[in-house]
Amino acid sequence: MIVWALLTSVGINLGLCLLFFTLYSILKKQPSYLDVYAPRLVAAKEESEQRNGFNFERLLPTAGWVKRAWQPSEDEFMSATSFDAVVFIRIFIFSLRVFGFAGIVGVVILLPINYLGTQLDADSSDLANKSLDSFSISNVKDGSKWLWVHFCAVYIFSGVVCYLLYYEYSYISSKRIAHYYSSKHQPHQFTILVRGIPVSSGSSCSETVEKFFTEYYPSTYLSHSVVRRTNKLQRLTSDAKKLYRRLAHLKSETNPQRRSIRDGFCGLFGHKVNVLDHYGKKLETLEDNVRMEQLSVAGKEVPAAFVSFKSRLGAAIALHIQQGTNPTEWVTERAPEPQDVHWPFFSSSFIKRWISKLLVVVAYAAVTILFLIPVVIVQGLTNLEQLETYFPFLESILSLTVVSEVITGYLPSLILQMFIAFVPPIMIMLSSVEGCISFSQIEKSACIKMLCFTIWNIFFANALSGTVLYRFDIFLDPKEIPGILADAVPAQASFFIAYVVTSGWTSLLSSVLFRLSPLICSIIKKPFSGKDGDELKVPSIPYHSHIPKVLFFGLLGITYFFLAPLILPFLLVYCCLGYIIYRNQLLIVYAPKYDIGGRFWPTVHNSTIFSLVLMHIIAIGIFGLKNLSLASSLIVPLPILTLLFNEYCRKRFLPIFEDYPLECLIKKDRQDQNDPTIAVFYNKLSTAYEDPALMPIRHPRSTDDHNSPLLQAGV
Amino acid sequence: MIVWALLTSVGINLGLCLLFFTLYSILKKQPSYLDVYAPRLVAAKEESEQRNGFNFERLLPTAGWVKRAWQPSEDEFMSATSFDAVVFIRIFIFSLRVFGFAGIVGVVILLPINYLGTQLDADSSDLANKSLDSFSISNVKDGSKWLWVHFCAVYIFSGVVCYLLYYEYSYISSKRIAHYYSSKHQPHQFTILVRGIPVSSGSSCSETVEKFFTEYYPSTYLSHSVVRRTNKLQRLTSDAKKLYRRLAHLKSETNPQRRSIRDGFCGLFGHKVNVLDHYGKKLETLEDNVRMEQLSVAGKEVPAAFVSFKSRLGAAIALHIQQGTNPTEWVTERAPEPQDVHWPFFSSSFIKRWISKLLVVVAYAAVTILFLIPVVIVQGLTNLEQLETYFPFLESILSLTVVSEVITGYLPSLILQMFIAFVPPIMIMLSSVEGCISFSQIEKSACIKMLCFTIWNIFFANALSGTVLYRFDIFLDPKEIPGILADAVPAQASFFIAYVVTSGWTSLLSSVLFRLSPLICSIIKKPFSGKDGDELKVPSIPYHSHIPKVLFFGLLGITYFFLAPLILPFLLVYCCLGYIIYRNQLLIVYAPKYDIGGRFWPTVHNSTIFSLVLMHIIAIGIFGLKNLSLASSLIVPLPILTLLFNEYCRKRFLPIFEDYPLECLIKKDRQDQNDPTIAVFYNKLSTAYEDPALMPIRHPRSTDDHNSPLLQAGV
Repeated sequence: MIVWALLTSVGINLGLCLLFFTLYSILKKQPSYLDVYAPRLVAAKEESEQRNGFNFERLLPTAGWVKRAWQPSEDEFMSATSFDAVVFIRIFIFSLRVFGFAGIVGVVILLPINYLGTQLDADSSDLANKSLDSFSISNVKDGSKWLWVHFCAVYIFSGVVCYLLYYEYSYISSKRIAHYYSSKHQPHQFTILVRGIPVSSGSSCSETVEKFFTEYYPSTYLSHSVVRRTNKLQRLTSDAKKLYRRLAHLKSETNPQRRSIRDGFCGLFGHKVNVLDHYGKKLETLEDNVRMEQLSVAGKEVPAAFVSFKSRLGAAIALHIQQGTNPTEWVTERAPEPQDVHWPFFSSSFIKRWISKLLVVVAYAAVTILFLIPVVIVQGLTNLEQLETYFPFLESILSLTVVSEVITGYLPSLILQMFIAFVPPIMIMLSSVEGCISFSQIEKSACIKMLCFTIWNIFFANALSGTVLYRFDIFLDPKEIPGILADAVPAQASFFIAYVVTSGWTSLLSSVLFRLSPLICSIIKKPFSGKDGDELKVPSIPYHSHIPKVLFFGLLGITYFFLAPLILPFLLVYCCLGYIIYRNQLLIVYAPKYDIGGRFWPTVHNSTIFSLVLMHIIAIGIFGLKNLSLASSLIVPLPILTLLFNEYCRKRFLPIFEDYPLECLIKKDRQDQNDPTIAVFYNKLSTAYEDPALMPIRHPRSTDDHNSPLLQAGV
Repeated sequence: MIVWALLTSVGINLGLCLLFFTLYSILKKQPSYLDVYAPRLVAAKEESEQRNGFNFERLLPTAGWVKRAWQPSEDEFMSATSFDAVVFIRIFIFSLRVFGFAGIVGVVILLPINYLGTQLDADSSDLANKSLDSFSISNVKDGSKWLWVHFCAVYIFSGVVCYLLYYEYSYISSKRIAHYYSSKHQPHQFTILVRGIPVSSGSSCSETVEKFFTEYYPSTYLSHSVVRRTNKLQRLTSDAKKLYRRLAHLKSETNPQRRSIRDGFCGLFGHKVNVLDHYGKKLETLEDNVRMEQLSVAGKEVPAAFVSFKSRLGAAIALHIQQGTNPTEWVTERAPEPQDVHWPFFSSSFIKRWISKLLVVVAYAAVTILFLIPVVIVQGLTNLEQLETYFPFLESILSLTVVSEVITGYLPSLILQMFIAFVPPIMIMLSSVEGCISFSQIEKSACIKMLCFTIWNIFFANALSGTVLYRFDIFLDPKEIPGILADAVPAQASFFIAYVVTSGWTSLLSSVLFRLSPLICSIIKKPFSGKDGDELKVPSIPYHSHIPKVLFFGLLGITYFFLAPLILPFLLVYCCLGYIIYRNQLLIVYAPKYDIGGRFWPTVHNSTIFSLVLMHIIAIGIFGLKNLSLASSLIVPLPILTLLFNEYCRKRFLPIFEDYPLECLIKKDRQDQNDPTIAVFYNKLSTAYEDPALMPIRHPRSTDDHNSPLLQAGV
């Protein structure tokens, strides 16, 4: 890629970004798009609008929202959103610091050295026509003394990143503890999930649990709720819910024609009946079924139960100490928040869950490794000759250079992006099959899966771009890896710079800020739905698809820091944009769905360590290729030191993210002893983990009240 | 190696075994050798002699001891020895079962198939001159259908071994729980070790501990003893002890000449003084020093303490739940038995211990990988030409075929064995530097180190027998490993058969049963020491050098099962001998030094799994070499299944070996509540973990009482 091409690409994308920015600034102020751009504010109604002093009248694009997103301090931001959101924003702050340092070193020191190198022997003195490779390490002469500058830069940069990692880990873990201290008593702090309950014949699961815990935890045991197999019930209640919505919608219908329906096949034949009566009867039958199923479900016990204790310490003891002599029985696990429980997970035994975990690992590996095969095949179908064969009328258009360039240049990457869009749901599915008990766990596990997937299928697949088999072969030849990477990775620098601009900047603005797909959905839906037929759903941020993306840019920045420092300014811009945009969206779009106390951070830390080690491996290879074998060998201690540093951090900080220490638990418990509301809380606690499908059906107070849910169940 | 050579070797070793057996049977009955052959009985004095009805008069070699070692049931054996001894003997029972099955399949089915193969095209029809390779898989024709029998044997054998492993793991873990239930209350069950105590300036370590545990464990905390830096004190007390012994010895001296000494340089110049007075004064000064040091040591606190609780559950809670917000502070660890504590370990902080662990890993890897280099060099010095150059007078002797054969054949292996003899102490040293807090931990860690060392330096070094560098290179080429192993391992079958016979049979009888080195020591010492000048020390079994040996034979049997089944009968004999001999020695020679509740078993299990996977890898290679690539690919799932089985066992059984479940702890605690002796025990408990060097010096009741220790300290 030449400089001119890069500038063009940057120009186009800058234009697009400005367009989205302007459109957002205008649309955001239109009341009809508030559902899309500020659902949190809408859900919180006027109060918040007044508090924040929003003004929806202006039609001019303004950047006032940038200021409002920028202004709140971290504590204000946390109280307005959640601790997890703060941790998410810390990724950007961390990246800004890393790339700030890297940018200065890279642009001021390394870039001139690279540019003044003569290895590539570029004839063109015209800057615009120079290859981007003249700005990369490839341009430095083999064996040149200047490479020692790169060598020092790698060492210093690794040190700085490790220091920043340590600082950030320590900062977030202290914040996590502080957040815990300031939190109110919540059901999940007092509850554990017990699986693999050894139910003896002749007694129910509930009796077994009751007996075990009253015997061994006489002073702290409070209550338990046994999990039941409610798949069928959930189906029934969700049907009933749909039917009720339809009924409510019909009642608001003014056209009498639409209020009658034929009672025969598909509503086409038979007598005309009043629709309201028809659906009303149907709903009644369904409600009866739900009640019957609720009664019968009481017997369908799964050998798992949520057990609540009177103190956090009691729950922690049950969580950490093996209960029975058989470690596969009475398996304890931290309970998620009640609204976070993923109910359909419970029907499997220890061995079944273990096997399904293994199968998920295999399936995940297969999806990750073989993902590119269908993509490459579909991409192959779109080459020009085949298109001309299939659609002869296109021939004249395809012969235009611009069109053919767009098709050969953009179509394959568009197809790749389309395929990638399907991946997060697949990862979520895999993680939920794995046996995770809560949405937060599923997202956390899917996040790690997505990250590895992205690194493999975007970084390695693009960098190595050989056949799939060839790439797999490398792992059987570890000696060759640094050389192969050093050969392939710098060559892709210009591709990844373009990737940062397109996939980073533009998609950040279009999908995260402008919310293109929710906007389109909302525009399509509007004519078909009533004024406020559906309740407004405030979305939650899908961490599993956002975090891997941000971390992937981190990986690009770290690995290309000394190879092609030109990428760093673009990444800095990305981080700044991301910081403002995500702060804005977290404040007014996404509502926190659960609170996992920043447990995403260890993933961020590990990903950065991986990036560092990858950079070191590439450095070993590249100094070898550049005939500087001394530098190549002197880099070897660096990955080892980095991994040791990681190991130390694991010991120093990871336990804090796994669980709260006894000191905190006891202090919180003692606070509770003086809290007058604790008795009420205990009462709530004993029913907090009832399956929502088992709740009694609530009848609406008024049939015209559209917004009040008829069925609490399944909501 | 030809059959005849094997038979010769077996014959010679059988002769040696018989010799040792006879000598043992006779010497064991001589009262003067009782210290060597039955120290436990001697230590327990006449009672046991009468109880067991020993008869020392007979001079004829008899095998009565075999019967006595065989007779006791497992429970009787356990009550006479320890649970760890039972677990050690279970290794032999397990091996007997495995090799029993393997032997039947190998000798009845595989051996005839191998022998009837024609690959090696042996001309000699004389059985005695046949190469041993005709009995190995190498003799089966490439691509022969008969290889499928081997294939099936590998699958069936793996299944049987896994079943036996599961059975044994489950048996031993249930025994372990039962052993715990039947045990009395012991200090280490109620105590934990706390390290990394964050001592704030202005308060002592003891105060900090007291404050922390009374605050957070108000109901269960009992007492603590802070660890102090006592290296100097230990040196002083051990000096005092030696001096006392000398004094005691001198007092029993009848020759008045020896009772005086000159008080000048080296006892050669100056006035003649009475030795008794001289040493008496010296001892007094030393005792004063000890007392002063004891006082000063009180200030030398190490930020570590043994904290005792009133219940086992209290200790378990403190052990399993992270205490403070900083995971590197208040680090808790299971306390070893008081007599098992390795006192000099305590002076290091968290980070120092971590670094020393890393250094030990590096040192261990270096020792293991580079061990063969000095051995090979020393072996190279002993070749005939060099010997003749250095010692010309040997020329005539060295020209004899027998002598040269012995030198070239036996000397290198003798040198290897000599070098290997130095390894267990090195491993013990490495493990103690690592920061283990007890002798049992040191031995356990050294045991694993020894095992890996043995497998690498005896199995791989012999099998691959290339240059060191060449062998190291393999690991960078994982694809090649099965092929290289398949090529090299079967070729060494005859070497390992000879190894089983020499290093297995003969060294078992000579070193374990006949106790050659203690016998020689005792014979040398006897004329120099007084009648009973030294106290009799009952040795404990050094598990770290015995277990790896036994497990190594297990590895040989499993890997050679389908390659050269001829090894199996020899291994069966080894296991039978080992079973009887170790039972005998554990009953009358070795006293249990500590009780770790059979925690050696997971090592045995893992080692067997490793052997199985190694066998599978070799099978993959060998079926590939034999042009049966289908069988080669069909073996691939087998190591994966084996590793999954291992993973399941880890989940199912390993937690039981790591700690006792809450159920057991609470049951035992409740038993104690009704125990009238518990108050006395609590009193003892609070002083159980005092450093023995800090105990007050006890004065002897009578100066003529040689056996009563003057100094309790340091004993």
